[in-house]
Amino acid sequence: MAEIPQLSDNKVFLAFTSYATIVLLKMMAMSAFTGFLRVTKKVVVNPEDALAFGKGENGKKFIRTDERVERVRRTHLNDLENVIPFFAIGLLYSLSGPDISTALWHFRIFVASRFYHSIAYLTPLPQPNRGLAFFIGYGTTFSMAYRLLKSTLYL
Amino acid sequence: MAEIPQLSDNKVFLAFTSYATIVLLKMMAMSAFTGFLRVTKKVVVNPEDALAFGKGENGKKFIRTDERVERVRRTHLNDLENVIPFFAIGLLYSLSGPDISTALWHFRIFVASRFYHSIAYLTPLPQPNRGLAFFIGYGTTFSMAYRLLKSTLYL
Amino acid sequence: MAEIPQLSDNKVFLAFTSYATIVLLKMMAMSAFTGFLRVTKKVVVNPEDALAFGKGENGKKFIRTDERVERVRRTHLNDLENVIPFFAIGLLYSLSGPDISTALWHFRIFVASRFYHSIAYLTPLPQPNRGLAFFIGYGTTFSMAYRLLKSTLYL
Repeated sequence: MAEIPQLSDNKVFLAFTSYATIVLLKMMAMSAFTGFLRVTKKVVVNPEDALAFGKGENGKKFIRTDERVERVRRTHLNDLENVIPFFAIGLLYSLSGPDISTALWHFRIFVASRFYHSIAYLTPLPQPNRGLAFFIGYGTTFSMAYRLLKSTLYL
Repeated sequence: MAEIPQLSDNKVFLAFTSYATIVLLKMMAMSAFTGFLRVTKKVVVNPEDALAFGKGENGKKFIRTDERVERVRRTHLNDLENVIPFFAIGLLYSLSGPDISTALWHFRIFVASRFYHSIAYLTPLPQPNRGLAFFIGYGTTFSMAYRLLKSTLYL
Repeated sequence: MAEIPQLSDNKVFLAFTSYATIVLLKMMAMSAFTGFLRVTKKVVVNPEDALAFGKGENGKKFIRTDERVERVRRTHLNDLENVIPFFAIGLLYSLSGPDISTALWHFRIFVASRFYHSIAYLTPLPQPNRGLAFFIGYGTTFSMAYRLLKSTLYL
């Protein structure tokens, strides 16, 4: 009986699974951080949430925006805008039979760039730290897309 | 000739396909609902949209925000922030060879938690309904990510 | 030895890979465009970004919103809300063994509708251009989800 290749024998796919999961967890951490800040700083959006801090008019003053919370939300949104295209393009790329070492460097550089981006945004570090982190990640995803289209264009 | 395993013979993957499609349709319903409210309540963002309700200065008064529409948009954004990581991590998890019954419960609980979340946000139900729904879904995705990294870490 | 089917022998999956990559690159172009406008029009969100244009009080005046930038951001957000469900549902659909010509038309119409949507939003073209583009794309994704659930429901 023939030995049957499984996705679990595909090293590039296994590596993608690990790196993608790590960077997706980092993105999800931004949700939890926003929630944590909303509770500890008492900054809410919805009237039903304000009730936790005070009834009626007393609670309404907690419906407000806070620069610290907004910064975490922008970091989260930037992750959504960048990590999800990485996941989508990276998944297709890792199934297109790329060289394992080229693929690994794409995954490593992308994941490192997103941790650097979040640190640069939340600290905040002076520019061009955040801009650089963004462009490294963006370029990595773009490079995978380019290789993918070059190797498997079928329209 | 050897029987060849296909993704369509993989029960976990089939189950993931069904649950993911259902929860993605639920997320897409929020787009349609926002559009529906914008038309029926005459609340628009763009000048070219306001022209449907009145010309010139007469139309401009419909460029405004409305608390009901904003609530639907927040529900939608919360779906984007949670359903997409579920899709990404759940897809990788379902291809990593998990136990079918464990996998099914993860999918069922996640999908139920997101319906509960939307109901809690749109009604709105008093807290901690929405918070609970969020944490159940978040925990389910986190549990899949943890199992995935434990079983197939390859860096 | 049996010939083993690989994802790279699956024409629907290959076609999905190409169309999805193209529309994901189009979505990513919105990030770059927002960044380009922020720099050329000097419209920033963060104090550390304003320093590029002036120190202290002199820089603060660049922390502002601009209707042109906001329009690009809305176009980007609309892409996130629609391209990502297309990717997720389209991926599962293309692995469910659909007819190649039906699948190709779904992919082509969706991708064309999103280019049309961005052009309609950024120009802006008068309504119902943008609304129509949105509904064509939305309907295409919905049609794939319907076919998927009809062919492989497993709960």
